[in-house]
Amino acid sequence: MRLLLLLIVATATQAYGQDSTLIRHMADDILTQGKAYENLRTLCKEAPARLSGSANAAKAVELTQAMLKEAGADTVYLQPCMVPHWIRGPKEEADLSMAGGKKISLNVCALGNSVGTGPAGISAPVIEVRNFEELDKLGKKVIAGKIVFINYPMNQTLVNTFAAYGDAVRYRVLGPSLAAKYGAVGLVLRTLSTSMNDYPHTGTTHYDSTQPKIPAFAVSTNDAEKLSRYLRMKMVSRLYMKAGCRMLPDTPSFNVIGEIRGAEFPNEVVTVGGHLDSWDLAEGAQDDGAGIVQSIEVIRALKASGIRPSRTVRAVMFMNEENGGRGGEAYAEHAATDGLQYIFGLESDNGGFTPRAFSIGAPPDRFKEFTAWGPLLEPYGISEWKVGGGGADVSPLTKVKAIVGELVPDSQRYFDFHHAANDVFEAVNRRELLLGAVNMTALVYLVSKYGI
Amino acid sequence: MRLLLLLIVATATQAYGQDSTLIRHMADDILTQGKAYENLRTLCKEAPARLSGSANAAKAVELTQAMLKEAGADTVYLQPCMVPHWIRGPKEEADLSMAGGKKISLNVCALGNSVGTGPAGISAPVIEVRNFEELDKLGKKVIAGKIVFINYPMNQTLVNTFAAYGDAVRYRVLGPSLAAKYGAVGLVLRTLSTSMNDYPHTGTTHYDSTQPKIPAFAVSTNDAEKLSRYLRMKMVSRLYMKAGCRMLPDTPSFNVIGEIRGAEFPNEVVTVGGHLDSWDLAEGAQDDGAGIVQSIEVIRALKASGIRPSRTVRAVMFMNEENGGRGGEAYAEHAATDGLQYIFGLESDNGGFTPRAFSIGAPPDRFKEFTAWGPLLEPYGISEWKVGGGGADVSPLTKVKAIVGELVPDSQRYFDFHHAANDVFEAVNRRELLLGAVNMTALVYLVSKYGI
Repeated sequence: MRLLLLLIVATATQAYGQDSTLIRHMADDILTQGKAYENLRTLCKEAPARLSGSANAAKAVELTQAMLKEAGADTVYLQPCMVPHWIRGPKEEADLSMAGGKKISLNVCALGNSVGTGPAGISAPVIEVRNFEELDKLGKKVIAGKIVFINYPMNQTLVNTFAAYGDAVRYRVLGPSLAAKYGAVGLVLRTLSTSMNDYPHTGTTHYDSTQPKIPAFAVSTNDAEKLSRYLRMKMVSRLYMKAGCRMLPDTPSFNVIGEIRGAEFPNEVVTVGGHLDSWDLAEGAQDDGAGIVQSIEVIRALKASGIRPSRTVRAVMFMNEENGGRGGEAYAEHAATDGLQYIFGLESDNGGFTPRAFSIGAPPDRFKEFTAWGPLLEPYGISEWKVGGGGADVSPLTKVKAIVGELVPDSQRYFDFHHAANDVFEAVNRRELLLGAVNMTALVYLVSKYGI
Repeated sequence: MRLLLLLIVATATQAYGQDSTLIRHMADDILTQGKAYENLRTLCKEAPARLSGSANAAKAVELTQAMLKEAGADTVYLQPCMVPHWIRGPKEEADLSMAGGKKISLNVCALGNSVGTGPAGISAPVIEVRNFEELDKLGKKVIAGKIVFINYPMNQTLVNTFAAYGDAVRYRVLGPSLAAKYGAVGLVLRTLSTSMNDYPHTGTTHYDSTQPKIPAFAVSTNDAEKLSRYLRMKMVSRLYMKAGCRMLPDTPSFNVIGEIRGAEFPNEVVTVGGHLDSWDLAEGAQDDGAGIVQSIEVIRALKASGIRPSRTVRAVMFMNEENGGRGGEAYAEHAATDGLQYIFGLESDNGGFTPRAFSIGAPPDRFKEFTAWGPLLEPYGISEWKVGGGGADVSPLTKVKAIVGELVPDSQRYFDFHHAANDVFEAVNRRELLLGAVNMTALVYLVSKYGI
């Protein structure tokens, strides 16, 4: 018994020793010969503003097909899905009419899914609320006929900025209809950002079908402060908003998939991905060009290592995460009927920052299989395994019993850029991006070798 | 025995509960009301290029005295020290004379301590070596009369970039004298940077007194690649270098100290600091404006919490870390004779990035006292306690038996900026900077309360 145990331990150590060497080899390759950073430059500069349904989204489909082929995927193919098609139209306008007659323009953008204002725009008095409680308290009497300005800053005391976003995002999603319920004619949201700057963010809002649809803007943090100050000083007579955004009919699009067929268990699939679409104001570098090029890099690094994975590895560029999630749904629907076994789905959609953890949605016994790999990934910055789950695109795979997870990079800078015009290639640090690719490659390699 | 143990555990838990609450309170204050970010802006914009002996270094002494008073230090005072006074003179020039007669200029800067070239500059053929082994191999016959170009890139496969710097920095420190030994008339070093850009870094070089002092430049990574390519193509006939830098006599300067006197053990001193001087090309934001404003913030946050520390807490703005270390030495010399007990010295000089660890130089039993505080700091990002030590300024305190340590933030971006003109205020992320201040404040608070 004791001898046998020793033997098992020795074999395990030996296997992990080989894994450690191979992971080091792949890491060195990614950090020195990798293509992720240049791929990100190409994607961001040649297909920025890749909102679902746009010409640039179609271009991104083409670009990433080529990148996956270049990376050495055995097969590269498209998976069709229908996607919403919202367009912003000409740059929005917002002006304050000041007491003395002066006009002051604000840095604004329409929220995703927002209706337009009509060509004449709308003009109304503006009233500030700090939260929904204040909105409810003021009620129809005060709100009706006005533009509501929701001035709810992200909570800076939450160390994980995604928690602060989770707390504040309800104002973007629910704000317009809750304001419309009291007769508001428009909404201006203090943008969801952790920094003070001039870049309003966009992102989906949702209209409750029982309420009138009112135009909804975000205003930059700097201008939210300015607006609030002017309102306190009673210097603002009216706010003018103009936007030509509108929703067009659904349009066909695609997930892009690149695959390395498993040598031993080709019917067991390990999925790794990010989302290919981005908001239309930005280059979509942190969100989520980073996840895209990291996923392509997993394929490239595995191929370059010369080792064929035991299980099939698929890099999936999901379409339409931002305003619909149709790509993720289409992939899971297909997975439910194709007779393959989807064992793991890994996502990178939290920015290309220094990796700190993996979040895994698995029952305790299987979670332990991941943490057992901890020492192999620790040299590359993974200091924690969080009980959690995957992002929006791989989560539908839980319907086919896949375990899902996501890369958790450092969160401090993410909401300086999120969904705003400053989310550009230059906002991504090369080494931080590549270290994410290293850890994703290592984890995909381990799952594809050992299963879960 | 068992009861007693329970009692101790209960008391400990209770105390830690209070500590946890107080640390949360101070963290919230730092993240929302803190002054570190605005202080950094002031220091960088009003006193950039704070090289020892310069007018801006003197201005930085004044500015930080005012900041420490504003932070609420009981006493603020200056500690004199003599510092070296090296000046760069007019912007350096470097031109390649190309085979066809064309001139191509390079992005260069003189290394710190370098001698000048004289007003006429120097012109010589240039020869590339990749390392000292190649230099030795070529020897006097080939090297004599030439300018040596050392093209040794930082090792990108080392996940900790400080390890890559440690590996490469010998070329900057020793390169000029080793080249001079073989008769070289000048040295050009591929700048020590992890990114490809146009910003050469400076930093000290050291002349061996047995060799002629030759002018030593750094060339930006982009231009190092360019120069290497032209040399391979045999397109370069000569390199021209011109610099007016020189060493002036030592000059008086100061450490700036702000103190909160301990309530119970005023003779036991906890030191926290960074260095006030910076290289002359930059604003010295990451290096080390960050450490300065974080140390001031420790004083501000402790005062603002309303709790008087049991032991004396001193924030020290050390002068002359970059090219001499005289401030750190002066502080330790004073400590050896003033009759006080220096129990701990904490330094922040690794950039204002997201904190990941503390490095502590302590024997195992006392190291454990630090790791026992781990759970209190983990919510703010400290996931590791490294056996190590402090930086250059607090390390001399080991002579008076102090335990020393340093903040270890994420290292990925540090050598994109280090000692180069792009180390500016805008390169520092507010939340990353403040989280460093949070963890430093927490650790200083704990040591000042419990001792070691």
